[in-house]
Amino acid sequence: MDVNEKYFSNITARERAIFEGGISMGALFHQFVGTPVNVKTKDNLERTIAESFKLQPAIEDVEVKINLTDTTEFDYISLSGDMLDVKIHTQVENVKAVIRIEFIEELNYPLMYVEEISE
Amino acid sequence: MDVNEKYFSNITARERAIFEGGISMGALFHQFVGTPVNVKTKDNLERTIAESFKLQPAIEDVEVKINLTDTTEFDYISLSGDMLDVKIHTQVENVKAVIRIEFIEELNYPLMYVEEISE
Amino acid sequence: MDVNEKYFSNITARERAIFEGGISMGALFHQFVGTPVNVKTKDNLERTIAESFKLQPAIEDVEVKINLTDTTEFDYISLSGDMLDVKIHTQVENVKAVIRIEFIEELNYPLMYVEEISE
Amino acid sequence: MDVNEKYFSNITARERAIFEGGISMGALFHQFVGTPVNVKTKDNLERTIAESFKLQPAIEDVEVKINLTDTTEFDYISLSGDMLDVKIHTQVENVKAVIRIEFIEELNYPLMYVEEISE
Repeated sequence: MDVNEKYFSNITARERAIFEGGISMGALFHQFVGTPVNVKTKDNLERTIAESFKLQPAIEDVEVKINLTDTTEFDYISLSGDMLDVKIHTQVENVKAVIRIEFIEELNYPLMYVEEISE
Repeated sequence: MDVNEKYFSNITARERAIFEGGISMGALFHQFVGTPVNVKTKDNLERTIAESFKLQPAIEDVEVKINLTDTTEFDYISLSGDMLDVKIHTQVENVKAVIRIEFIEELNYPLMYVEEISE
Repeated sequence: MDVNEKYFSNITARERAIFEGGISMGALFHQFVGTPVNVKTKDNLERTIAESFKLQPAIEDVEVKINLTDTTEFDYISLSGDMLDVKIHTQVENVKAVIRIEFIEELNYPLMYVEEISE
Repeated sequence: MDVNEKYFSNITARERAIFEGGISMGALFHQFVGTPVNVKTKDNLERTIAESFKLQPAIEDVEVKINLTDTTEFDYISLSGDMLDVKIHTQVENVKAVIRIEFIEELNYPLMYVEEISE
């Protein structure tokens, strides 16, 4: 079976680059929010998040930055969506897209949007 | 600030209907996989998954069906992606889309794809 | 195989009541943190969390209260540990325990502890 | 406030070593189940899981082994509880405990139990 032909012929390459990036961004957020993190574990956690979602379809690269804004008496916090600054790079045929999540002060929540897209 | 103008003017309504549905499908999968479930709790879990993700942007409706294929000695299992049959209905302006996840026997994994889209 | 004899004969009934309650409390927190929630979905989400973890070994009852302290422009938030007020009732043989999580102002984080235990 | 005196004086050091280990084991399972993983990302994911939960109270060390038993056409799978072989080492005062999860063939599910405990 040709998966692309059977299940994805109703959308364009550009639409699929957006679709796969959206899936992985929603997935990444809900998979890792809640993970214990502090300054010592931050770098490796960022790398693991990036590597894990780079495995998904059409994902070319993932850049993850965790903004640690709080600490507690016990010296670690639970990862929250507000701390995430992530770029997911997708490619489908010739189309490249960058899906972004970042905390927007003015909105007071982390927004997921299409930051860049070719064509 | 007009969020739509500032962050979403680079994609069409159709593309955004696909984007928001993809986000919510990835999110739903990674939020609820692992939840203990059995025949008694299945219906209410399906309802809660649907209600929770209907809150997200552009989501008009969510239909969730959990296929319980296994049981264990302890009489419950962890929800896995293979059990999910979900339709997420999105709408952006006049465009309506249905994003689907279902287990595909031939692929041996649950596939996320755009099942229906207007225009 | 007698699971209890093989794997749990090295701890007392009281210790196991504490152990199973601890497992389910840690599990509950990390399973559901991140779930979209608002005033309309709160009651059903509380019920689903309770029902799901009541399935686990030695769990007699689960009481879940979500404290909704924030709202956003999009009218829902991600469930965080700070909002959780949960009591997990366990029983092993004659021993009953109540494991609690609640946000403690003075500590500024949600604490998990053994609130009540018989004997 | 002395947290230990106020919230933990009703249980022994041995009971707390069991309690904190149970919490972290339940947490670890439900935090990471669902994460995309394959042979290339396995080692770093194991390390991140271990580091993240070593941050929690009373946790001295965490050993994580992921048993990759399946592959798919897309060359990665979702981490499931069946693949986890984890030892969490806790210490409270003089008491040391090892909490274990491993898949038990005879039971056909992953069991959490107290593998070792001093005194």
